[in-house]
Amino acid sequence: MASNSFGEIFRITTWGESHGKEIGVVIDGCPAGLEISEDEINVALIARAPGRTSYTSPRREEDNAKILSGIFNKKTTGAPICIVIKNSDADSSKYESISNLLRPGHANFTYLEKYKIFDYRGGGRASARETACRVAAGAVAKKLLYLQGIKTQAYLFQVGNIRTNVLKDSMIQNDSMTQKNSITQEVLMPEILTLLNDIKNAGDSIGGVVEFITTALPVGLGDPVYGKLPAKLASAMMSIPGAKGFEIGEGFNSADMLGSQYNDNFTKVNEDNDASNGAQSNHCGGTLGGISNGMPIYGKVAFKPTSSIALVQNTLTTTGEAATLKLPEGSRHDPCIAIRSVPVVDAMLAIVLIDCLLLNKGAYL
Amino acid sequence: MASNSFGEIFRITTWGESHGKEIGVVIDGCPAGLEISEDEINVALIARAPGRTSYTSPRREEDNAKILSGIFNKKTTGAPICIVIKNSDADSSKYESISNLLRPGHANFTYLEKYKIFDYRGGGRASARETACRVAAGAVAKKLLYLQGIKTQAYLFQVGNIRTNVLKDSMIQNDSMTQKNSITQEVLMPEILTLLNDIKNAGDSIGGVVEFITTALPVGLGDPVYGKLPAKLASAMMSIPGAKGFEIGEGFNSADMLGSQYNDNFTKVNEDNDASNGAQSNHCGGTLGGISNGMPIYGKVAFKPTSSIALVQNTLTTTGEAATLKLPEGSRHDPCIAIRSVPVVDAMLAIVLIDCLLLNKGAYL
Amino acid sequence: MASNSFGEIFRITTWGESHGKEIGVVIDGCPAGLEISEDEINVALIARAPGRTSYTSPRREEDNAKILSGIFNKKTTGAPICIVIKNSDADSSKYESISNLLRPGHANFTYLEKYKIFDYRGGGRASARETACRVAAGAVAKKLLYLQGIKTQAYLFQVGNIRTNVLKDSMIQNDSMTQKNSITQEVLMPEILTLLNDIKNAGDSIGGVVEFITTALPVGLGDPVYGKLPAKLASAMMSIPGAKGFEIGEGFNSADMLGSQYNDNFTKVNEDNDASNGAQSNHCGGTLGGISNGMPIYGKVAFKPTSSIALVQNTLTTTGEAATLKLPEGSRHDPCIAIRSVPVVDAMLAIVLIDCLLLNKGAYL
Amino acid sequence: MASNSFGEIFRITTWGESHGKEIGVVIDGCPAGLEISEDEINVALIARAPGRTSYTSPRREEDNAKILSGIFNKKTTGAPICIVIKNSDADSSKYESISNLLRPGHANFTYLEKYKIFDYRGGGRASARETACRVAAGAVAKKLLYLQGIKTQAYLFQVGNIRTNVLKDSMIQNDSMTQKNSITQEVLMPEILTLLNDIKNAGDSIGGVVEFITTALPVGLGDPVYGKLPAKLASAMMSIPGAKGFEIGEGFNSADMLGSQYNDNFTKVNEDNDASNGAQSNHCGGTLGGISNGMPIYGKVAFKPTSSIALVQNTLTTTGEAATLKLPEGSRHDPCIAIRSVPVVDAMLAIVLIDCLLLNKGAYL
Repeated sequence: MASNSFGEIFRITTWGESHGKEIGVVIDGCPAGLEISEDEINVALIARAPGRTSYTSPRREEDNAKILSGIFNKKTTGAPICIVIKNSDADSSKYESISNLLRPGHANFTYLEKYKIFDYRGGGRASARETACRVAAGAVAKKLLYLQGIKTQAYLFQVGNIRTNVLKDSMIQNDSMTQKNSITQEVLMPEILTLLNDIKNAGDSIGGVVEFITTALPVGLGDPVYGKLPAKLASAMMSIPGAKGFEIGEGFNSADMLGSQYNDNFTKVNEDNDASNGAQSNHCGGTLGGISNGMPIYGKVAFKPTSSIALVQNTLTTTGEAATLKLPEGSRHDPCIAIRSVPVVDAMLAIVLIDCLLLNKGAYL
Repeated sequence: MASNSFGEIFRITTWGESHGKEIGVVIDGCPAGLEISEDEINVALIARAPGRTSYTSPRREEDNAKILSGIFNKKTTGAPICIVIKNSDADSSKYESISNLLRPGHANFTYLEKYKIFDYRGGGRASARETACRVAAGAVAKKLLYLQGIKTQAYLFQVGNIRTNVLKDSMIQNDSMTQKNSITQEVLMPEILTLLNDIKNAGDSIGGVVEFITTALPVGLGDPVYGKLPAKLASAMMSIPGAKGFEIGEGFNSADMLGSQYNDNFTKVNEDNDASNGAQSNHCGGTLGGISNGMPIYGKVAFKPTSSIALVQNTLTTTGEAATLKLPEGSRHDPCIAIRSVPVVDAMLAIVLIDCLLLNKGAYL
Repeated sequence: MASNSFGEIFRITTWGESHGKEIGVVIDGCPAGLEISEDEINVALIARAPGRTSYTSPRREEDNAKILSGIFNKKTTGAPICIVIKNSDADSSKYESISNLLRPGHANFTYLEKYKIFDYRGGGRASARETACRVAAGAVAKKLLYLQGIKTQAYLFQVGNIRTNVLKDSMIQNDSMTQKNSITQEVLMPEILTLLNDIKNAGDSIGGVVEFITTALPVGLGDPVYGKLPAKLASAMMSIPGAKGFEIGEGFNSADMLGSQYNDNFTKVNEDNDASNGAQSNHCGGTLGGISNGMPIYGKVAFKPTSSIALVQNTLTTTGEAATLKLPEGSRHDPCIAIRSVPVVDAMLAIVLIDCLLLNKGAYL
Repeated sequence: MASNSFGEIFRITTWGESHGKEIGVVIDGCPAGLEISEDEINVALIARAPGRTSYTSPRREEDNAKILSGIFNKKTTGAPICIVIKNSDADSSKYESISNLLRPGHANFTYLEKYKIFDYRGGGRASARETACRVAAGAVAKKLLYLQGIKTQAYLFQVGNIRTNVLKDSMIQNDSMTQKNSITQEVLMPEILTLLNDIKNAGDSIGGVVEFITTALPVGLGDPVYGKLPAKLASAMMSIPGAKGFEIGEGFNSADMLGSQYNDNFTKVNEDNDASNGAQSNHCGGTLGGISNGMPIYGKVAFKPTSSIALVQNTLTTTGEAATLKLPEGSRHDPCIAIRSVPVVDAMLAIVLIDCLLLNKGAYL
């Protein structure tokens, strides 16, 4: 089944494995006339790139995006935009010693059963490497949104049981962050740095939560019933490797709220405001009936701990014999995948929103 | 934008408003040869139907499904199955007194802005009435799954801050529950009944959480990257009216787990087992890399409190003037929409799974 | 596989069998704000309805469309529009005597092999009865187009080897024909009437060709590569029962033309014309590179002879035994399906064009 | 609008312009386990490649396909297969002298109006260069079909008014032609060679017709109503640059046939034949009700004359001024695009059929 595309009008298709020569993305349906450069995409890729701090995977990719199509005289032409990124540092030789072992938490067992092929080298299509393509496409989506006055942002909300003290309302106002893809480890709190250090020294990994937010959206994005904006966002976020939970607005907190607390009453923002139906609170997270109501969208995505750990684990061989797995020395993995997922969440948010914006045209005569 | 369809091979399209004469669903792509009757669908609809206890909406629909196509000699023919349900008790006259008011928490504001049409009578397409069609289609999906040896189940997990004491592992084993659509209020704990009573007397409403589970699935359902089973489930669940959060497996708990705790180690189930790669734990909730791993799928869906409450609320008129909303006497609404969402969660789970089962054919040569 | 839907933004889904109680169509994605009534749809259905002359099938359906959803205060709301039509005159008892026979030219053999179900009563989903739903949806599409200044038309071009003397350029100018669905037998030439009479008396049937045309279209409808307007039209037309060929512009004549004859040179229409790049000729049929160029679209659809004939035919039983088929006395079939396909071709043309119009929004920034 | 993808389960997405550095195709949904090499794809590309005879465009591309993903140990893995082809000989400098002129028959006018971008260098996405990607993907589809016992073939049927004397029944039997992509100019008749020579010397171009055929197909490919096999084939063929007409079976000949001539009577093939319902004739071209009936599929595609001719043509500038177009000396174009479209027709045929084969799984319980 063809499952490597996302979106309806603005549709991305990604390809490539973590240990192949190149990976890439085709963006189909991007409106013509957008000025976009490889440099702008590379800026976005830097935030996601591994090897930048001691708390993300030491694998160091250059991640220089090359645009192969869809641009003429620096502008998009309406033709599909193919962007490729070299896998300059994919070392699969290290995997040979464990080439017959199922790896707990990884997809190599399910891929083997589904496709009858066992690619022992890294995660193949299940690898987080694929998310570089999402970030590249997200940079295009973010610029389209920016020209419509919409900014998106994602940031690390929680690692283990430590919540960051980020003020989300202030962050999204910060104009300088708009094209620079979302903050990550630069602003990690000392408590989180200490925790990550301890986890890493113990050869273990830990989960986390990423929060996302937008500036006030136009009313009307998202469609009734199965095309609800939260349904599209949930699908987008839960397709990120390691995602285990999704919330919009109050999310699971809603379960313990009263209607009289939860409902966002409509209030007049000011006399001149055309879209006068603002609300003082935003418990709903910017959508009513699945359609944006003019408030900012916000929500959270939970990530499991990194599956690859340095500790010995019990497992089976591909032929079903009991075995122990000890990753080879020098294996490179992040102790917390939530950190590097921050720009991916931001990218998927932008890709959903630009698609909804384009889909919304023609809602009425 | 066409947004009233869900699924790829097994695709449902629903239509009808809460206050129209009939609502309905077209199931396209159902395999031929399934024996299915209106009675079987009606059994499923009973669990969802309003007016059955004092804790769900007093609106009483007969909800007799009529199958208009796709069946010959009691069996599906491969042709689209159209099922219609009469709206026998849709009383829109009561809404006239509030026909120019935006209703907090409801979609009538966003629908007005998106479509420039204000249908004051109930929720239109945004109403939970639409979910009867999902349950009808879900009954077909559940029977298809049952013939493949797969059972699904959903049940109320939490209301307000009270968690039920249901043992999910035992429930799914209970064969009698397979075709009877998931338990709801019959098994509510006394503490929850008391809470609902208090909420109702206060004219307020409250949120809740629904949990879902399956029996052990075949390995291989779901597709890589954007077609992951959790992404499809998240989209399905977040399309249910009032859904604010989705989890699979440990969900948001994952954030505070170590990799060494979270990873489900592969273990040998027994000597003869062909699919020998079981695991002792199931923190992942039955999927690895977005593809089912042979364990049961389980997860949760959070619902906000019912938007309609008996208390006075501040709001605006459709022309932007400040106003107060007091629902007319005799307005009928559930104090907790999570309760009636139980069979809807179960239906969407079944619809996703049968679609994945059909999509999985042809994965390899 | 779900195959009963057509279109992307303006998407129709049809259901119902020729011998069931009702058939219907769900139109999803229709813009809100269109005033449309059951009467307008019924006017369109009249042109398609059987039983109106001695040259179309004596089966007489009332074909009163009932709109079940998607309309409020006479206007579309953006919600899916479900239209149902009763099968008031479906007499399946006559088919019982031939209930174990494969019928030459019919789909009952292929449906049996594909679905393992043999519905001997009429054509099921393969029956031309389904096209009533297309015509109903087409009436909505035609009205949307009309409000954009676009008119469509189809008419009988050829029966057997007799070509009609219709002047297509004059026809489309005739304003009164816009909502009245395309001419059919009212304007049949005496030569064709004589031919049809002879064919009917001989118990035989004959093929034909339908031509379609539009007024000048806006430039830009259709999309590059696989979304070309001619590709969409071809798919739409070849999905009509009995269609065997499709042409746009010069069609198969192009094979014997020189480039210097065929190319439509661009010429200045007049000084004030905004869309100044008209052409004197229109060999291409209104598209360049698959995208409308501002000229009228025109083309043809070839139909095979009606499969049901009164003559004895050799065939097999469903269990593979040699047999002869003689349709029961009083069996009702058109001698030439092309005649009744005229409004269906017109409807599919309109459905493709409104979808392309809605898809074209957002082509550039 | 995203329009660069084709197919549902086996889905191709092409990208790249005629004068960019590379073009490519992503094949998503190819079953795992197929052994396929770059060499096999290159053999298919040779038949399509320009510059091979004096009757096709002198532009000489090496057309060495490079597979970037989706293959491991020589076999498909279920992951998307990205194939890229270098544009080694794209010389856009010659177009500069005509960079402000609309070219009759070409898409640069409609692309300009749709996207507000004028790419004067060759045809961009509208160029026949894109079809190399289809042929590459078609080689994969053809191999999958071959392993299911299905062979496809296309060949030149007509140039101008000269029909070739190819016997289609004998051709498809020729096993050696299976993987070698369909014959083209090697077998051109002397009359056609003379005609092409004359056309070329006159600076003109000419149209043509390509015929396609398969070996006997399994019964059941294609779906009812809008998913009919002829509808899918028509869409596929009419998306090829320059296609103006499509026929299946008797096509437009059907219009002048009687039902008693046209109907293919079912006859017993032999005592042992499981699929015993063969027919002596095959006027329908292998489908009944849009679903394959076990006979070979065959049909035709008409192509217009090449738009680029050496003669002077009247046209307009991009700003609407009258002008004359004389292509620069050394411009490279085929006198008859039908010739080079032969392997493209074959590729699209194979892509449609493999998709239908995969879609057909799950038709019944």
